[in-house]
This record gives sequence, C-alpha cells and structure tokens, in this order.
Amino acid sequence: MVYATADGSERDRLRVGMVGGGRGAFIGAVHRLAMRLNDRIALVAGALSSDPVNATASAAELGIAPDRAYADYRAMASAEAARPDGIEAVVIVTPNHLHAPIATAFLEAGIDIICDKPLSTTMAEAEALVALTAARKRKFIVTLNNTGYAMVRQAREMVAAGELGEIVAIHAAYIQDWLTLPIDAEGQKQAEWRTDPSRAGESAVLADIGVHAFNLAAFISGRQAESVSADLFTAVPGRRLDDNAHLLVRWVDGARGTLIASQTSPGHYNDLSVRIHGSKASLEWRGTAPEELRHARYGEEARTIIRGGFGSAGEAQRVSRMPAAHPEGYIEAFANLYRDAAEIIRAHRDEVELAAGRAAFVPDVVDGARGVKFVAAAVASAKNGGAWTPAAFDQT
Amino acid sequence: MVYATADGSERDRLRVGMVGGGRGAFIGAVHRLAMRLNDRIALVAGALSSDPVNATASAAELGIAPDRAYADYRAMASAEAARPDGIEAVVIVTPNHLHAPIATAFLEAGIDIICDKPLSTTMAEAEALVALTAARKRKFIVTLNNTGYAMVRQAREMVAAGELGEIVAIHAAYIQDWLTLPIDAEGQKQAEWRTDPSRAGESAVLADIGVHAFNLAAFISGRQAESVSADLFTAVPGRRLDDNAHLLVRWVDGARGTLIASQTSPGHYNDLSVRIHGSKASLEWRGTAPEELRHARYGEEARTIIRGGFGSAGEAQRVSRMPAAHPEGYIEAFANLYRDAAEIIRAHRDEVELAAGRAAFVPDVVDGARGVKFVAAAVASAKNGGAWTPAAFDQT
Amino acid sequence: MVYATADGSERDRLRVGMVGGGRGAFIGAVHRLAMRLNDRIALVAGALSSDPVNATASAAELGIAPDRAYADYRAMASAEAARPDGIEAVVIVTPNHLHAPIATAFLEAGIDIICDKPLSTTMAEAEALVALTAARKRKFIVTLNNTGYAMVRQAREMVAAGELGEIVAIHAAYIQDWLTLPIDAEGQKQAEWRTDPSRAGESAVLADIGVHAFNLAAFISGRQAESVSADLFTAVPGRRLDDNAHLLVRWVDGARGTLIASQTSPGHYNDLSVRIHGSKASLEWRGTAPEELRHARYGEEARTIIRGGFGSAGEAQRVSRMPAAHPEGYIEAFANLYRDAAEIIRAHRDEVELAAGRAAFVPDVVDGARGVKFVAAAVASAKNGGAWTPAAFDQT
Amino acid sequence: MVYATADGSERDRLRVGMVGGGRGAFIGAVHRLAMRLNDRIALVAGALSSDPVNATASAAELGIAPDRAYADYRAMASAEAARPDGIEAVVIVTPNHLHAPIATAFLEAGIDIICDKPLSTTMAEAEALVALTAARKRKFIVTLNNTGYAMVRQAREMVAAGELGEIVAIHAAYIQDWLTLPIDAEGQKQAEWRTDPSRAGESAVLADIGVHAFNLAAFISGRQAESVSADLFTAVPGRRLDDNAHLLVRWVDGARGTLIASQTSPGHYNDLSVRIHGSKASLEWRGTAPEELRHARYGEEARTIIRGGFGSAGEAQRVSRMPAAHPEGYIEAFANLYRDAAEIIRAHRDEVELAAGRAAFVPDVVDGARGVKFVAAAVASAKNGGAWTPAAFDQT
Repeated sequence: MVYATADGSERDRLRVGMVGGGRGAFIGAVHRLAMRLNDRIALVAGALSSDPVNATASAAELGIAPDRAYADYRAMASAEAARPDGIEAVVIVTPNHLHAPIATAFLEAGIDIICDKPLSTTMAEAEALVALTAARKRKFIVTLNNTGYAMVRQAREMVAAGELGEIVAIHAAYIQDWLTLPIDAEGQKQAEWRTDPSRAGESAVLADIGVHAFNLAAFISGRQAESVSADLFTAVPGRRLDDNAHLLVRWVDGARGTLIASQTSPGHYNDLSVRIHGSKASLEWRGTAPEELRHARYGEEARTIIRGGFGSAGEAQRVSRMPAAHPEGYIEAFANLYRDAAEIIRAHRDEVELAAGRAAFVPDVVDGARGVKFVAAAVASAKNGGAWTPAAFDQT
Repeated sequence: MVYATADGSERDRLRVGMVGGGRGAFIGAVHRLAMRLNDRIALVAGALSSDPVNATASAAELGIAPDRAYADYRAMASAEAARPDGIEAVVIVTPNHLHAPIATAFLEAGIDIICDKPLSTTMAEAEALVALTAARKRKFIVTLNNTGYAMVRQAREMVAAGELGEIVAIHAAYIQDWLTLPIDAEGQKQAEWRTDPSRAGESAVLADIGVHAFNLAAFISGRQAESVSADLFTAVPGRRLDDNAHLLVRWVDGARGTLIASQTSPGHYNDLSVRIHGSKASLEWRGTAPEELRHARYGEEARTIIRGGFGSAGEAQRVSRMPAAHPEGYIEAFANLYRDAAEIIRAHRDEVELAAGRAAFVPDVVDGARGVKFVAAAVASAKNGGAWTPAAFDQT
Repeated sequence: MVYATADGSERDRLRVGMVGGGRGAFIGAVHRLAMRLNDRIALVAGALSSDPVNATASAAELGIAPDRAYADYRAMASAEAARPDGIEAVVIVTPNHLHAPIATAFLEAGIDIICDKPLSTTMAEAEALVALTAARKRKFIVTLNNTGYAMVRQAREMVAAGELGEIVAIHAAYIQDWLTLPIDAEGQKQAEWRTDPSRAGESAVLADIGVHAFNLAAFISGRQAESVSADLFTAVPGRRLDDNAHLLVRWVDGARGTLIASQTSPGHYNDLSVRIHGSKASLEWRGTAPEELRHARYGEEARTIIRGGFGSAGEAQRVSRMPAAHPEGYIEAFANLYRDAAEIIRAHRDEVELAAGRAAFVPDVVDGARGVKFVAAAVASAKNGGAWTPAAFDQT
Repeated sequence: MVYATADGSERDRLRVGMVGGGRGAFIGAVHRLAMRLNDRIALVAGALSSDPVNATASAAELGIAPDRAYADYRAMASAEAARPDGIEAVVIVTPNHLHAPIATAFLEAGIDIICDKPLSTTMAEAEALVALTAARKRKFIVTLNNTGYAMVRQAREMVAAGELGEIVAIHAAYIQDWLTLPIDAEGQKQAEWRTDPSRAGESAVLADIGVHAFNLAAFISGRQAESVSADLFTAVPGRRLDDNAHLLVRWVDGARGTLIASQTSPGHYNDLSVRIHGSKASLEWRGTAPEELRHARYGEEARTIIRGGFGSAGEAQRVSRMPAAHPEGYIEAFANLYRDAAEIIRAHRDEVELAAGRAAFVPDVVDGARGVKFVAAAVASAKNGGAWTPAAFDQT
C-alpha cells in the first residue's frame, strides 16, 4: 500500500516568534512540538516569559539567538518588524487576558498572528481584533486545534456534502476532572490563572474548554449558534469562577442541541465529544479516540470510519501521515493546523493563490470572536434565569 | 464457584390478570416473558384486547381459561374480585391514556396494580391514583423496568452509601431512531398511538422514553427533580407531537444536569444512559451494555464493574442469576421487577413483613406520578420560553 | 416498529425430567430458567441428586410430584417409560462421567435426550451413544448452548451463504479466571469434580470450556476439525488436570487456526470468542457482548451488526424476542436451544415434518462426539510432543 | 496540572545519515518524522535511493547538502567517516536483505547504527553483526518501535516489579489485511519486495510483522523464547512466501503462549496486541489503542490505565509529552525511541554515564538477532511438521 506520508520536505520555512511559553508553561511546548513535526516553521524569536531571566534562559534552550530573545512583547514586535529577516508571524500562548493586547501590537507591526484560544476575554476586544485584522489585511489564525484532526475534517466534509440530510440535533461536551479538588486555592499555577476572573474572563469552564466544544460543533456542522440558554455553576466551594456549564443551544438553520463543559467530573481526563444527528444519518467523534468517526446511516448498521482506512477520504486522506491503525494523535492534529497555517500565511505574503478550500479548515479571527460571543451569551443567559440569549457573531 | 442461580422454586404463585397485550401488541408479550422467568406468577385472567375476537383468541393461546377471558376490563375487575381464586393483581399494558381508568377500576375492586409507564397522561389522574391507592391501602407498582437491572441497583446503593460524595451533575439520555421517518403518518401502529395527543399525552418523546431516563436518574441518584428548563421540538414535519427533548434539570440537594430524549437519531436503537458525577467519584451505566457499571474514583483509574464479578455486591449479587460474563439482559431485569412485585404484593396480602429494603428498589405509584409531573413541567417550560419550572411531586 | 416478540403461547408442552441439578448445583438451575422462558416445556419428573434427601427436597421445591421424584436414574427411566403421561425427554445435568450411562439408560427406555456437554469422557462412550441413538431412532441433543445466540446463528448463515469467501483462518478462545487459585485443592465443589480425572475426563480445561470454543468455531464455520497440535499444561501446582490449552488446528477444506482455553487468566470471567477470516470478509463474535457481530468486508469499513437491528436477518430475526438494544443474553440463547429442542423432539414423536433447516442449528449426539474426539486428539498430541493428530469424527 | 511536556530543548543534535528512504518509500519518511519531533537529531547526509537521480532529488527535498547526497552507501560510509563533521550514526531503512551489508560497512567505518527490523534475513548475518558490533564497540539500535510506547514501557516495568506474579501465558498477534488480494502479483511495490524470498527472507509474514509481535511479547514479559511449534501457510494462491503464521511458543522460565501473524485478515489494518497472564494479574495492550493498558488483578475488577493518568507511572510518565486523553500515537512512540537512541549514542561517544536503566528500553543488535532466530526457528518447525524447535539466541 502506498501511503501519503509526506513529511514536509520543503525547506523554505516560515519564520515565527513566540510570546509566552517559557519554562514551566504547558501549551507553549505543545505548540513547538506541533510546529516542528512537519518542518515548515522556524522558531527564531521569542518573548517567552514576562520574567526576563526565564525569558533568556528559555530562549537559549530553544536555540533562539540571544539578540532575538526579548523581555517585552512590544519591543519584540517593533524590533522584528524592523529586521529584514524578521518574523513573519507570532505565536501567542499567554494567559487569556493578554491575547488581545499582544495580537494588537503585532498586527500593527504588520506581523501575522497565530493565537491560542480563546481569542480574548471580552467581546469588545474580539470585535476590535476582527476589525484591525481586516484593516491591516493580515492573517490571524486561532489554534482551535481539534479542527486539525483528520476525522474531524472528514466529518465536516460529510456534513457539507449533505450525507446527514437536515441537521436535527448537535450535542457537544468537554468533560475533565482536573479541578475536582480545590487546587486553584492551593496555588497550582495552571488552575490558579484559569479560575481568576481578571485573567480568564467571565467564565472559566467555557473559556478554557467550552469554546473547544462549541468550535468543534460549529466546525463539523458548518453552522453558527443562534441562541443559548445556560446553567452555569461552581461545584467546588470557594472557587472564583464557574467550573461546570450545562447549555441548551439553538443553531442557525434549525438544529438544536446541548453543550456540557465540566472540570470536576472524575473519570474524564479530556473527554471532548460531538454527536450530530441528521434526518438521514448521524456522526459521532471523540477526542479520546480521535482516529475513529462513527457513522450511522438510517436503515443501516453503524460503521466506524478509521483514519487512513477504506472509509477515509478527501481532506482526511490529505492530512494523514500514517497508514490506518498506526494511530495519529493530538500533536499530529495540532501539526496539521500549523502546516496549514504556514501555507496560508506564506501564500498571503507571497501573494500566491492558496489551494482551493484550504483556508476553510483553519479557524480565523472571526471564528475566535464567535467563541467569545458564545461564552458571553451563555454568561448573560445564566445571569438571566436561563433566558434564550442571542449568541451569533457575524463579520461585518 | 458457587453462583446464586436461584430459579424461583417456590410453588405458590401470585395470581394475576392482564389488560391489554393481545396479539400484535409489543409490551404485553415482554411482560409475560418477564413474569414467567422466575415462576412466581400465574397469568390466569385477561382482557387482552378491546376487540372481543382478538381478546378470546389471545387468551386461548396463553392458556387462560375461557371463562376468565374478558372483553371488558370493568367486567374483569368485578368478576375477578368476586371469585375466591380471583386475581390478586392486574397487569396494565394498554396505551397510556387508559392506564388511569383501568387502574382505578381494579383499585376499587381491591386488586393490586402492576402498571406500565407512564402512570397516566395528566397530573390530575396521577394525583387521583396516588390518593386512591393510599385510601384503599393497595400496592401499585409501575414497571419502570430499568430499575430491575443488577448494575442499576448497585449504582443506587453506591450513591446511597456516599461513595460519590456530593452529587454535582446528573446526565441522562434515551436516544432512539425508530421515528426518524414519518412512519406514524404511514399508519405504523406503535408509532401512530404514541404520537397521538389523545392517547399519548402532551409529549410523545417524554412520555414514551424520557420518563425512563428521568426515572433512572432519580432512582440511581436517590434524588428528585426540583425544576426543569426545556426545549421540545418535532424533527419530522407533520408529526403531531414532539420527537426530541433537550432539558436542563436542577435536582433537590443541589445537583444539576441535562436530559436528552430523541426518537429521530440514526445509529441509536435504544440508547439509554445515565452518568452521575460526584465530588469523589463518578458512575456511568448504559442500557446497551447493562452488565457493566463504570466507576471512577477521583485519583484512580476508572474500573468497570461487571455484574457477578469481583466488584459486584449487595443487591446486585442478590438479583444475579448467572455468573459474570454470562450476560443477563432486558428480560432478566424485567423479571427482577416482577419477582420483587410478587413478593411485595404477596407479603402485603399475607400481612407478612417484607425483607428490609426490598420495596425501595421497586417504583410505586408515587414514582409514577413523579414522572408524570416531570413531563408536565417540561411541557410547561418549553411553552414558556424555557423558563425554569418546578418539577417536584411529593406524596402528601 | 413491529417486533417478533412471540412468547411461545402454544400450550401443549413437552414433558421432561431432569437427572442432576439438585440444590447447590449450578447448571441445572440454568437449564430450568432456559426451559421456562418460552413455556414449551414442563418439568414433571426428576432424579435431581444422588443424595435421596436432597433429591426429594429439590423436587418438592420445583413442584415435581412426590411420586415422580426419584432417587435413582435407572428407576426413573423405567418408571417414566411405563407411564402413559411419562416424560418424553430427559435433561442430563450431572458431572461429565455420568452422561453416558444415564443417556444409555434413557435411550434404551425410548426416551429422548437433552444432555449437557461434554457428551462423555471417553471416545468409546461417545461412539456407543452415537450408535445407540441411531439404532433406537431417538433424538439426542447436546446443549452446546452458544449455538442458541441469535448472532451466532446469523454468523453461521453468513458463512454458509459464502459472504466470507474461502475460509482462511479460525481463531477461537475461551478464557476464564476462576481456577487462578488452587480452590480445587481447598474443596470448592464445582472446581473439585471438574479437575478430577475420574469425573471430568483426560483434560479438565478442554472438557469444561474448550469444547465450547471448538463447537462454536465448527458451528459458525460449518467445518470440522481435521487435525490438532496441542500444548496442554497446568499453571497451578498440584492440580490434577490441565488448566490451560494452546492448540493449533487444521480444519477440513483448508482453513487453519488456533484455539486457546484457560481457567487461570485474571481479568477474564467467561471470555468466549471466535474470529473467522475469509478471502472476502471476516466475522468476530464474543460471548461477553453476544448481541453484536463484527463484520468486515475487505475494502469496506467494519460494521457491527446488532441483534434486532438493520443488519440482523434470517435465523437471527426468527429467534429474536426483543427489539435491538434491549439486550438478550445467556438465558435467552439457552432458551432458544430449548425451544428448538422441544420442537424437534415433538415433531419426531408426532412424525410431523420439522420446519426446513431447523435441526441444523441444534447440536446433536454426533456434534457431541466430535467435541469428545477433539479433546481426545488434543490430549494425544500433547503427549506426543505436539505432533499433528487426526481430530475428525464422522458418523458412519 | 503541570505536565512533563519537555520538547527537547537541548541544541546539540546528533548528526545522522540515512540509507534508503527516498521518494516513494514508506518507512523512511516515518523515521524522519520521528527523529524530528524532539529536535535531538539532524539529518545531514544520505544515500536515499539506489537510483542516483532519486537519491539526489530526495536529498535536496530534505535539505541535505549536495556533497552529502551519496549514490552509494559504501561511498557514504567512507566519506562521512573522513569528515570532521561526519555523521555519528546511520539510519538504515532499506529492504530487509540489505540491512546486514549496509550495517557492516558503517560499523567498519566506526559509525553507530540505527536499523529497521528485521535485523537481517539470515542467522549467519545476524550473528556476524552481533560479533562485529561487539568487536568495534559500537552502538547498534534496531527500531522495533513499539517499545517506544509509554504504556508498553509501563507494562514492562509492571512485569519486572512482579505485579503479575509468575508468568503463565503470553499471547501476541499482529493481524493485517493489506495482502488479502494478490497485489504483490500485480506489482504493488511495498508488497512485491516483502513477498520476494531474495529480499524478505524465508518468511514474509514473520519478517515483516511477526517479529514485531515477538519482540513486543519479549520486551514486556522480560523473557526470551525457548522453543516454537509453527504452522505457516499462504492464503493467496501464487504468493511466493507465507502470509499467515500460527505459532505455539514456550518461553524461558515456563510461560507458554501463542503468536499469530496474518496479512490477509479483512477488518484488521494494523492490529498488534499482546496479552500476558500471570498468577496474580493480567496485562493487555493493543497497538490500535496504544494509550491504554488493561490491568486486571485477580480478585479485583479490571481497570484501564491511561497514559498520563492516575495509574501511569515511572518510565511512562518520563516519556509522556501530553496530559492524559490528549492522545499520543505511533509517531510519538517512534520519537521516544529516537530520543533515547540519540542519548545512548551520544553518551557512548562522549564516554558519559547514561541514566540508569535507560538502555534497557531500547532494542539493540542482540534483540534484533533474537527476532531473526525466532523467525528461523519457526520456519524450521513448520518444515518439520510443527516439531518443537529451539528458538533462543543468547549473546556469547
């Protein structure tokens, strides 16, 4: 069998810098693994920590030249913009509340953005970022990374091709256990900032993981949320923000559904799932078994499509590196996003035509803003007795 | 290994009659399989069909003596009450709207009741049945049959013993596919009456399967619903009642959750599930794999308890017939309910003390009324824009 | 949906007696549950224990008339043969070494046989039973009960219809854990006789569970064993017979495979499985999830056929009582065997034509003898350094 | 939660070259993805194809300098050995029959070896490589890559710690479907050389995948094969080598088991599994769900250990990059092997002490030779009627 194991042989790599992600950070290291896998990206600059000592040491470990190890992101933006070999894009992996000011600084310096989710902690920031991105004609990618999974992309294509018929119901969930105990009150770093309203936003559980479930549902279904009715609550006494969210959602074009986010559910490490029921067929995907896509046509027994297998097609085949049942995982999916990001940014910079349809699989600043809007609507609904609250965000 | 395969050797069987369940009916035959398995019950009378020819022929097939094959349930109630060897209990397996009048007739005749769910189609009927049962000091069992599964009973015991800590979240669902197409409009008998407001009640999907999910969640958690916020809708154009329900639920004592019922979801034949998250552990059970109970304590890997296996205990052991991994299923669970029903009714009739705790595992008329109340509250909430609506029913 | 929930309404029940199966026995109670489910069989006589007190008490519990509670099977055979309402068939559920003498006594009395597996502990006995059954023109059914599962029967039909193409490989296994510790040495009754050469035969693990795996493989594949190469061993020091068997098997018509039987494997309560690979497709079935049949055509994604679901057909539909995903289990499968047994025996007694193909699903004395031959061949191979040893038994 | 997501920040990378792996090759690209992930290895030279045009073009795509793109591996070995910045190790990813001559050339040039499996196609070659490696005091790593999985390493540690008690049975299997049709006869490149005795060796299915199953069983159990009884056969008419192998295995220290390898089994893409039963507990691991390790202690319910989760410990934690349920897969496991390989080779070259126990997780030339010996013994057994044949290889 001849497999499409292309390993990214092209040598002209995109030059990127990183803000955040120094020693002790979690997600920055994940981004670096992902950008490294396909060898399309060179990490050449960084403001890796707000602590200058950590910033310098972290940069050295990563092989970043000392003169491109910055202590401040503003200095980095202006210095890199001035260099002939300056970075083409910046990767933002800081706590949530810093996404908007950092992205703003780099957009204004003419540098493209690759930003972790959520886009921002307020709608005002999100709207400003959408407007600024458009005004500066820059590329702005939000690493809602589950969109990188081959089977997620195949699911999106199957829905778009009408294989499910009319979409009737969409059920999404992201269930974790890591905040079951009050570790935020005990100073655990990752927990501490994620449950701090000043850094995480108005909702902890929705900003941290709910947006992943929402984005995944929107990405696969090809639909946007219309309105939401929310019940948000805090299971652990003394926690400053919610840690559980139960939502009813109505989607544009008539589908309805539920969305659950929890960080206090024993037995669920990172249990992200989406289930879509249509008038002709259903699809189900889980992040814990990402190589599988359950597909049930009404009137037939369900089958499980395996990435790389006989039922795997189109975009899923394009992004597969391994044959079926040599499992790809989280890093590979994240790397798919980075490979596409590099291609999109480079094509834009080179004023070259991008392959048809390629950009559709990569979340941009508008998708990021939709997530922020969804969270804001849910918070408003919960405060208002669960009243149905508009949740749509459309680019103007 | 010595297994508790007691097969019900006692010979003094409870005498019962059946209303409904003639040729062509579905659930009546299921009840008969269930009552037969343990040999504690003798079916000796019946008004099996409203069609006299069918009633007579159905009775003959079942070995019911011709003089005890009735064409009318009222005639049956009075005639059986007058016989020295008359039935001790009646099994009601008619469409929903007939449950209340039939039960009323037999209660008034001094005959105990074993009634299929839902108890009734209106709260007024439910309340009247609760009151009449108390006034006549009769036993009234509602065959919410999932309570008969060994692993469901073990789950209830584990919650009651505090193994989950504080209950934080309860998610229940019952997902089917059999109404994906408009078979009710095409005259399919089972579909036709279940989607007819005059026979099914105000909600089809909740009365038919939602009450199972609700009862299961209440039974395992040992809690009652406090209020509900509902989104009910009809996926199939032209259908007279809803076929999908998405609910947020708040439970007494602080737990919150979701409840989903659907009859238009391809890929799900009879997918009943409940998941309960506590401050110390979680439990998950599915009707499609009823021999398993997933149990995850925070801080440990999840384990799957198998009926009859090393983690199986207490009530689960009592009701097991087979060793682990010789699967028991739907009929066995239903038979557990019938075995208990026979014991409860007989003990009551004989004025004998029932084994401690035995009655707690068998849904009664109050549990049935709670289901009717829950459905009514959900219907009211949906009509009122999803407003939180009180859903509790307490016996006065 | 209209389901085939026929609950066996016919009233003229087959009269049977039972030898073995008194208080404290395991498999006798299972047989009684199975024969009761479809109400086609009446248990009216018994020699339930070799201990007269237990025999009498056990019979009383089961409602057997005192004059038909025998202390000795020979007395039972002659007395019942002499009664006008005497039993038509006897169910034999004793330890293995008694199967042959008991069956012989009843065959000679003109009574049909329903015998637990293995047919006997020696080939001489097996051959004699085959010959006697033919000479007396009696029906002799061996309760290799896994043949009663709907999905097992469907698998057999799919192979017979050529859906797998040429059969290439057959892998069967029956893995248990219950003899992991030396409970036989500690006097546990079930363990004690099963590991005693004088009562179990030359191999414990093959006689007790290996024959189930062998029979299942033969039943589904429609093939007979040609030869076997065996490695038998005893994991627990001091045990008198083997508790593990690893076999290579060559089947008539060219398929090859493996067969594993173990009673000392932690984590496996009753893990019976068979996997058949053909040139066009594969099938896999497991006793722990008996409602599912995995079916993979080369070039397509695998699908899981669910009993009662869209992929369920033919014989599987005929024997289904419940709709899909209302699980049927071990008792239901055993009851299917009993329903067929009653029909076969009655048709034979009444000299009525049996429904075409019906007998093919029910193991008879020849199938039983094939299992005995297979065990004997494996024992001989193991003693002879694993040499390939003929394993076929054909009715002459 | 603080995760061990170390992304290989050290900058001094091991310099390696590659032989084989040019355009159109499968496994070479996989090796490159794996060596890239942790950024410890620089691919700086190559003889990527025996076709000079392909060799040059492939090297250019990979950023290898033109003067280090060789057309011949012997030229590469001598040229690189002469350079001050020459490669420290060579990666051999050619067809099987070339492994030995290429490895010999580089060993003689003082260059360390990272070689794909099987080590060689004859025992004479394997023994010579073992001897030469020892004589030249070089490191020789065989990429039996499943040893890189975190849960495989944890399984090995659990066995070594005595958690399973005495090892009783070991069952390993590698089942594929890709040779179900005669694609080798139709010229498919990967199939063609793998079924050619002159390039694959005496057995296709064992050399290609059986050695993976054998090595995995040996690695986890910490045991070596003592003898083997084999049944090898060819399912597809006209194929030049076997495509199915059914083996009984006896292991040093008393364990026994089976090993199945098949490339003609529909429904199994790459189904590698190992199951080990001990006197106290069992372990089971599957390559299709590599993040999970099923662990069943006798007397307790089975639990599934998840990489990164609460039951994950020791070596598994060390090699985890992602939190639990953000799945790692085949590339990550392969990358673990490369990360260790780089550390082992570098420490040896620098005459630095390696971290204790590190080398034990990485297969070396002796492990490779054991696989070759196992294949040779199985072939000999099959030719000799399945006679038990010694299969052990011990370093002298």
